[in-house]
Amino acid sequence: MQMAPQMGYDRAITVFSPDGRLFQVEYAREAVKRGTTSVGIKASDGVVLLVDKRIASRLLEPQSTEKIFQIDDHIGAVTSGLVADARALVDRARVDAQINRVVYNEPIGVEVLAKKICDHKQTFTQYGGVRPYGTALLIGGVDDEGPHLFETDPSGALLMIKATGIGSGRNAVMEVLEEKYDENANIEKTIDLGLEALYKATEGKLTVSTVEIAVVDAKDYKFRKIEPKKVEIYVKSILERLSQ
Amino acid sequence: MQMAPQMGYDRAITVFSPDGRLFQVEYAREAVKRGTTSVGIKASDGVVLLVDKRIASRLLEPQSTEKIFQIDDHIGAVTSGLVADARALVDRARVDAQINRVVYNEPIGVEVLAKKICDHKQTFTQYGGVRPYGTALLIGGVDDEGPHLFETDPSGALLMIKATGIGSGRNAVMEVLEEKYDENANIEKTIDLGLEALYKATEGKLTVSTVEIAVVDAKDYKFRKIEPKKVEIYVKSILERLSQ
Amino acid sequence: MQMAPQMGYDRAITVFSPDGRLFQVEYAREAVKRGTTSVGIKASDGVVLLVDKRIASRLLEPQSTEKIFQIDDHIGAVTSGLVADARALVDRARVDAQINRVVYNEPIGVEVLAKKICDHKQTFTQYGGVRPYGTALLIGGVDDEGPHLFETDPSGALLMIKATGIGSGRNAVMEVLEEKYDENANIEKTIDLGLEALYKATEGKLTVSTVEIAVVDAKDYKFRKIEPKKVEIYVKSILERLSQ
Amino acid sequence: MQMAPQMGYDRAITVFSPDGRLFQVEYAREAVKRGTTSVGIKASDGVVLLVDKRIASRLLEPQSTEKIFQIDDHIGAVTSGLVADARALVDRARVDAQINRVVYNEPIGVEVLAKKICDHKQTFTQYGGVRPYGTALLIGGVDDEGPHLFETDPSGALLMIKATGIGSGRNAVMEVLEEKYDENANIEKTIDLGLEALYKATEGKLTVSTVEIAVVDAKDYKFRKIEPKKVEIYVKSILERLSQ
Amino acid sequence: MQMAPQMGYDRAITVFSPDGRLFQVEYAREAVKRGTTSVGIKASDGVVLLVDKRIASRLLEPQSTEKIFQIDDHIGAVTSGLVADARALVDRARVDAQINRVVYNEPIGVEVLAKKICDHKQTFTQYGGVRPYGTALLIGGVDDEGPHLFETDPSGALLMIKATGIGSGRNAVMEVLEEKYDENANIEKTIDLGLEALYKATEGKLTVSTVEIAVVDAKDYKFRKIEPKKVEIYVKSILERLSQ
Amino acid sequence: MQMAPQMGYDRAITVFSPDGRLFQVEYAREAVKRGTTSVGIKASDGVVLLVDKRIASRLLEPQSTEKIFQIDDHIGAVTSGLVADARALVDRARVDAQINRVVYNEPIGVEVLAKKICDHKQTFTQYGGVRPYGTALLIGGVDDEGPHLFETDPSGALLMIKATGIGSGRNAVMEVLEEKYDENANIEKTIDLGLEALYKATEGKLTVSTVEIAVVDAKDYKFRKIEPKKVEIYVKSILERLSQ
Amino acid sequence: MQMAPQMGYDRAITVFSPDGRLFQVEYAREAVKRGTTSVGIKASDGVVLLVDKRIASRLLEPQSTEKIFQIDDHIGAVTSGLVADARALVDRARVDAQINRVVYNEPIGVEVLAKKICDHKQTFTQYGGVRPYGTALLIGGVDDEGPHLFETDPSGALLMIKATGIGSGRNAVMEVLEEKYDENANIEKTIDLGLEALYKATEGKLTVSTVEIAVVDAKDYKFRKIEPKKVEIYVKSILERLSQ
Repeated sequence: MQMAPQMGYDRAITVFSPDGRLFQVEYAREAVKRGTTSVGIKASDGVVLLVDKRIASRLLEPQSTEKIFQIDDHIGAVTSGLVADARALVDRARVDAQINRVVYNEPIGVEVLAKKICDHKQTFTQYGGVRPYGTALLIGGVDDEGPHLFETDPSGALLMIKATGIGSGRNAVMEVLEEKYDENANIEKTIDLGLEALYKATEGKLTVSTVEIAVVDAKDYKFRKIEPKKVEIYVKSILERLSQ
Repeated sequence: MQMAPQMGYDRAITVFSPDGRLFQVEYAREAVKRGTTSVGIKASDGVVLLVDKRIASRLLEPQSTEKIFQIDDHIGAVTSGLVADARALVDRARVDAQINRVVYNEPIGVEVLAKKICDHKQTFTQYGGVRPYGTALLIGGVDDEGPHLFETDPSGALLMIKATGIGSGRNAVMEVLEEKYDENANIEKTIDLGLEALYKATEGKLTVSTVEIAVVDAKDYKFRKIEPKKVEIYVKSILERLSQ
Repeated sequence: MQMAPQMGYDRAITVFSPDGRLFQVEYAREAVKRGTTSVGIKASDGVVLLVDKRIASRLLEPQSTEKIFQIDDHIGAVTSGLVADARALVDRARVDAQINRVVYNEPIGVEVLAKKICDHKQTFTQYGGVRPYGTALLIGGVDDEGPHLFETDPSGALLMIKATGIGSGRNAVMEVLEEKYDENANIEKTIDLGLEALYKATEGKLTVSTVEIAVVDAKDYKFRKIEPKKVEIYVKSILERLSQ
Repeated sequence: MQMAPQMGYDRAITVFSPDGRLFQVEYAREAVKRGTTSVGIKASDGVVLLVDKRIASRLLEPQSTEKIFQIDDHIGAVTSGLVADARALVDRARVDAQINRVVYNEPIGVEVLAKKICDHKQTFTQYGGVRPYGTALLIGGVDDEGPHLFETDPSGALLMIKATGIGSGRNAVMEVLEEKYDENANIEKTIDLGLEALYKATEGKLTVSTVEIAVVDAKDYKFRKIEPKKVEIYVKSILERLSQ
Repeated sequence: MQMAPQMGYDRAITVFSPDGRLFQVEYAREAVKRGTTSVGIKASDGVVLLVDKRIASRLLEPQSTEKIFQIDDHIGAVTSGLVADARALVDRARVDAQINRVVYNEPIGVEVLAKKICDHKQTFTQYGGVRPYGTALLIGGVDDEGPHLFETDPSGALLMIKATGIGSGRNAVMEVLEEKYDENANIEKTIDLGLEALYKATEGKLTVSTVEIAVVDAKDYKFRKIEPKKVEIYVKSILERLSQ
Repeated sequence: MQMAPQMGYDRAITVFSPDGRLFQVEYAREAVKRGTTSVGIKASDGVVLLVDKRIASRLLEPQSTEKIFQIDDHIGAVTSGLVADARALVDRARVDAQINRVVYNEPIGVEVLAKKICDHKQTFTQYGGVRPYGTALLIGGVDDEGPHLFETDPSGALLMIKATGIGSGRNAVMEVLEEKYDENANIEKTIDLGLEALYKATEGKLTVSTVEIAVVDAKDYKFRKIEPKKVEIYVKSILERLSQ
Repeated sequence: MQMAPQMGYDRAITVFSPDGRLFQVEYAREAVKRGTTSVGIKASDGVVLLVDKRIASRLLEPQSTEKIFQIDDHIGAVTSGLVADARALVDRARVDAQINRVVYNEPIGVEVLAKKICDHKQTFTQYGGVRPYGTALLIGGVDDEGPHLFETDPSGALLMIKATGIGSGRNAVMEVLEEKYDENANIEKTIDLGLEALYKATEGKLTVSTVEIAVVDAKDYKFRKIEPKKVEIYVKSILERLSQ
């Protein structure tokens, strides 16, 4: 990146550059690009979230590097970027979801929740005295309007999307998804597709121990983590298929 | 843009340059100029809003890149510029409209709403600790005084206008409108004119899948999005006519 | 303007330069000098406000570029400079006028109102965290002490004056007024004088469609806009007389 | 003024320079030095305030450039420097005087009032987020302890004085007063002395139309402006005497 | 560290650098890296915290350089980095633990407590007007879900971990732990492992007088400091074993 | 003063320089060093305060340049430095003294009062958004513990002292006092000593009209200004004695 | 100290340098290093505080340069560094002690008090808008757990210590204490040791008139200043012993 001509515009938080860009937001996106690779894909019967956690010290408790979070019974999220920022956003989302249950006596809509998070993020790009969140989220869930997948970035922009990736391996993931995404595929097949995308993103270095998968099932509106044993079966099958 | 002589005046938010300009506001306008091309035109029997969304990944949910927003039953808006800023302004406008219904028991006047948005924007150009909104809006609606179209920019300036464009293709749009606008044309013909303007703005790269159209009809004071199928018919007819 | 020796003094809002000037206020005045030319003249039987709006796109609604605002039944104002700032000041003035009616059960004095606006403007030149208003106003009205005309600038200074101009054509306007102002002239003749000043300020490019005129009549204490048709007659007569 | 060695100390509001000076206060004094020349003189039977307003456009309402203000029945003030700052201080002084009447049921002492204004000014030199007032005041009045004259400057310093001048002609004024002041002279003779000082300060360019005179009479404790006709007589007599 | 190209990004608290890093947080981590070496290890029957205090003046009261703190009956913590920051965080943790007892009438969960501390730390990296905490903590405790060990750093990131080290000797500690950690070892053996790690970290300069050890026992959920005499026995045994 | 190496440390208010100095406080002391010379001396039977006001325009009211202030019946103070700051501190001291009378029904102790002023001054050296007071005070008074003399400077430091001087002539004053101070001298003789010190400080330019003297008498605990006539006698006697 | 490479990191209050240091805190420590030499030593039967005040003008009241302060009946403190900061901290400590008596009806624990002061100091190193305290304290006292001595520095760090020194002579003091400190020595002998340390710190320039000594006796939990006469005896005996 060539710095000299932008000197000054990228230091203050809430200031436009002469060509109408918000550098702090763009730099926060760099924090996301250096993060773990996460994938979200809508299946015909639910939503699938996958992540390659990369870190695999035997001293780490497996749940410690959790990158897929349950927000509510029917909503999950996977993050890339600053982990402390991610936890703060996830906590906020969980509270928003609980408040909705208390106030309206029903689960929060997936889009309503995604918008709330984005509004909060936008505020951190316009007011002084704070920095933008250095975290992108994929939010997947099922409500009465079916399965949904949303992508947010540090600017607070929101995309309703069928399949996408964030983090360091995003480009590789998008290539796979653009080519092979099938919206009629069921959850099983969609997990396979997601793992293939992660396989490409990691240049084949995908391992059984670093993959985490969660689904929200359209049948029962429930978020659930895939158990490590089952993850192992999925990953092995992919490795066999692709490393030939 | 030649930067050296203005150094310093364009960094602080609320400061005039020696020639009486507010650089932050002008830079925010650059964010608008880099945005999607939007068009608003008053017809004899309503108001038409059009936008060319440009993005056309098959992985995106069509409604995700929505650029035309319903504010109230009788008012819609189309935006160019930072999408997160746009959503924040649209949300604010929706709340203003609802408050008017609750407090005065009647729909908000289109101009009243447009002024409220602009007052809010102006504040963000005069007080410290915030940046201006990087978003322009075209606000179209029908009230007891007939159809109205308003254009606002990041400064909070407000124009009541018959036909206009914002975003990257603004110049091309304005050329078409200046030449061909007919205030006696009905909604049908006005949509044609708007698409012609978008066709010019995209240098003929207009496609069926990226165009979004909405109207507010003077007959029933109702905002409605044109269904994709009908949009397709309009666009095809324009493409046939102009690409000959 | 030679920048180097003042470097630094003109960036902070509330800081004096070594020779006792407030640069931000002077720069705000530049915003006024780049604005539309407005004229205010006291007649024997009222006050006249005129403006040449310069913009004449057929796509603009005529009322959109309104530069003469009614503040109260008996007071009007014309502005030059940043239009969003002007609207904010005019709104504030209208509220001040209404509060006076509610609290004291009588119309606000013209000078009282003008001072309130100026006090507000002065505050924005002395306290940090804000920029000065980039707008000058001519405030004309009639109260029990007769017709009044006031001029304010971004510093919050206030002049009670008989005839004056603001905006880009100020110098030309002042030349005409200094030479030809007659305080015994009635409204009709005063409008002629004002148009002659605008004619000079526009170097003869005065057109029927860009002129806006309002008067406050000393007979009934009422502000009224001159209807476009009548404006046309005035302007044509001037054009005939002067372009010979 | 040689800037280089002080660089930095004169930009921040509340900061001392290495030699113990407050540059912002000194720069505010420059604003006063560029202001109109005002004179205050104690007579044996009252206090006299005079000012040469310099501006003499026939388009200005005479009262518009008022530089001598009545604060209360028994107190007046004349100002030099930023006119909007002056109005703000005068308004504050009037409110202080009224509060005294309400709370203590008696007119405010002249010194009490002068101190209140100075305390307020001092605050604006010690706290951040504001600039000093760019205005000096001469405050003249009569209370039970006789006639008083006070001079304040932007630092908030206060002088109880017999005769003094502020503004651009201060040096010339002081020369005359140092030489010719007679504390036993009555108001009539004191006005003559004041006009002579203004004559010197304007290098003989004193004119009938730009001089403003007010007195507070020790007989009835009343502030009154000298009527224009009477001012004319005084000025003419001075012009005759001195321009020979 | 090469400074020139990042100049400016590392001064402001809440600002991203062009490559998406938060320099202030990274610099705060340097404060941790210069701190005393602390070790935390989960045993089969509890958690062990150890620290080598390095300082050994006979003038210091032994408890003065306390680096292992009891947070609640069932939770302890060991810190590296700025000692005053550590004390502030420990005090905060103790209050959080007490509040939990008062509000919910039960001991706080170890993870709940660790998250609360991390949320607090994250806030200090995103809002202006403060600096990040220059302290890392190892938090060990036992609750109904068994023994837990958490590691936090100045960013507010949180790791649930089996064995780890912080401070200047971290690398040496991690080498030992990666190689020799056995999650089935009991507290006794785990203390031996921890001391071996400290021995490596201090390059054999481990002394009886500078080591501090605490355990939280899974049998009774109690935090207790190992008495100096017993510490002496452990240390001597290690020194004998390793210095041969 | 050599500026280059300290650049930056002396601009911000509450910042230490690398060698542990607070430049703003030291610069404020420069303001004191440029002030009028004041002297305070404890006598066997009271305290004496003296000042050489230097200014001697016949246009100034004598009380205008008052530098010795009565704080309460039994306490006086003399100041050097910024006069507006001095007035603000003296006002604050008077209020503190009155509050003590109201709350405790007894006169405030001299040391209590001096400490209150110093605490207030210290605050202005540690918190941002303000500058230190540019004023030193000598506070003299008599209470049940006898006569007291205190010296404070802009840092808020406080000295209980027997004899001292502040302002531009401090060094000359101190020389005289160090040599000739006699704590058994009575008020009369002490005044003579003070005048001798002022004589030295003014290099013999002491004049009858610029000296101001006040005493607090240990017999009746009363502050009183020495009348001008009596001052004249003292000064003349000194001038005779010393100028031989 | 080599400044260039750290430029910028040492100006802002709450910012880390790239190597994890807080320069403002380190510079505040320099203020302490330039302060008077203070010594604190625990004896078998109490705590001893000593200071060499260095200043010895006969014009100073002896108690004026008091460096040893009584905090409560059972606690004293001695300070080095900025005297106004020290007084502010001592006042705060006294209030904390009194509050403890009122709220808990018992004297405050010495460690509790020391921690309160340090927490307060830490806050001034982490939040913006203030500077750190430029003062170190030795806090000595006796409570039910026996005699205690604490040392705090500008960072808010706290050491429980047996014997220590602060201020300009710290290094010399520590050398003596490290060599000769005997925790079984009684108060008498401990005073001798402290004076020997001060003798070294002043390079033998210790004088009777500048030494101040206080003890808190473990027998009656009482703080008392050693009377000047007794101090004289101690000092003379030391001078005789050491200057041979």
